[in-house]
Amino acid sequence: MPTFEITPRNKVKRLAERGKYDKATIYPIVDEAFICHVGFVQDGQPFVIPTIHARHEDTIFFHGAKASRLLKYIEAGQPLCVTITLLDGLVMARSVFHHSMNYRAAVLYGRGQVIEEPAEKLAALRIISEAIMPGRWDDARQPTGKELKATTVVAMPIESASAKTRSGPPGDDDEDYALPVWAGVVPIRQLIEPPVADPLLNEGITVPDYMADFVNGLKP
Amino acid sequence: MPTFEITPRNKVKRLAERGKYDKATIYPIVDEAFICHVGFVQDGQPFVIPTIHARHEDTIFFHGAKASRLLKYIEAGQPLCVTITLLDGLVMARSVFHHSMNYRAAVLYGRGQVIEEPAEKLAALRIISEAIMPGRWDDARQPTGKELKATTVVAMPIESASAKTRSGPPGDDDEDYALPVWAGVVPIRQLIEPPVADPLLNEGITVPDYMADFVNGLKP
Repeated sequence: MPTFEITPRNKVKRLAERGKYDKATIYPIVDEAFICHVGFVQDGQPFVIPTIHARHEDTIFFHGAKASRLLKYIEAGQPLCVTITLLDGLVMARSVFHHSMNYRAAVLYGRGQVIEEPAEKLAALRIISEAIMPGRWDDARQPTGKELKATTVVAMPIESASAKTRSGPPGDDDEDYALPVWAGVVPIRQLIEPPVADPLLNEGITVPDYMADFVNGLKP
Repeated sequence: MPTFEITPRNKVKRLAERGKYDKATIYPIVDEAFICHVGFVQDGQPFVIPTIHARHEDTIFFHGAKASRLLKYIEAGQPLCVTITLLDGLVMARSVFHHSMNYRAAVLYGRGQVIEEPAEKLAALRIISEAIMPGRWDDARQPTGKELKATTVVAMPIESASAKTRSGPPGDDDEDYALPVWAGVVPIRQLIEPPVADPLLNEGITVPDYMADFVNGLKP
């Protein structure tokens, strides 16, 4: 299914023309970001926490914290909301009213499953690691059985999703285009800077090629 | 009160040593970010939406959408969670297990109030505008009465809050420091690029000084 069904849950209501439901729009947003914001509920109080995530096919993986509120909530089969936002620019219109942001946001809905089986857990952690920094997993010291036990990994099959995006110049009212006010976009992007070595790094260990490539822009 | 009381709601449970409760830590995180993620609940389903925000003293302001789910939720006096996250870097440890992120995150709790009084609404919109781009409000065409009516503005007095931060190099297990694995931090930051004029901009209108200063780094 290349497109998610539009339901009351995922329907974009505000500025509905900006809503998209196809995976070809949604998944690149999910994949470009390093972090997502996970929403859950406890006694009617919403909680929103940032966390590292990765997508594989139609599943989102993230680390849960052992014995955390979020983990208990997931284990109880409760619904999650996972939101990913990329900010692309500030939109400066001629009128205060038409100021806006350029952005790409994806909202994913589903229920989490705690991965218990060690090989599955290891595979999911590898997916997360490779999503963040391709090549790193094979270079670093592998997890021990004890470390694996101390890590909680959650898989959330994506039941429903939507994206909402805005791009391009401001849209002003016709009569405002004559105003002597500068209008346009101030672009914003995430900058990945050159690696900074650990002060405790042993001499003679250089930045690995996969990391240099990464900084040069192979990952956004 | 320079510090928020630690309660079950705002207590940082996972890696508690990274939790902070003083406004001197929390508010600069809130102020540096252009967007926040707002969490609310409908029929047990959490929703997390990105939105522009601004802080003034102990209150967060944001635009709500007319007749939106979120607005109805706010009008019913239901609790919100507003989370702001700044990603500062990828932490590359010698072991897979100790990989991490450097970040500064703030989580704010409260209930929203819809601002009805036009002068108060205008003042709140000005606060939001000035938080995003200082100097812009006075330059652009002011809101008409009709535009003001079409805009919903919400104030959320901050009842409770916490921050969670990580900075600095990786922390590896003692025996791993001898491994021939590069370790350190890949810094990440938000880059504000030079303004791009609207293709429909009339000739002779130059980028205003306040916007040039902004791009040069007066705002993060």
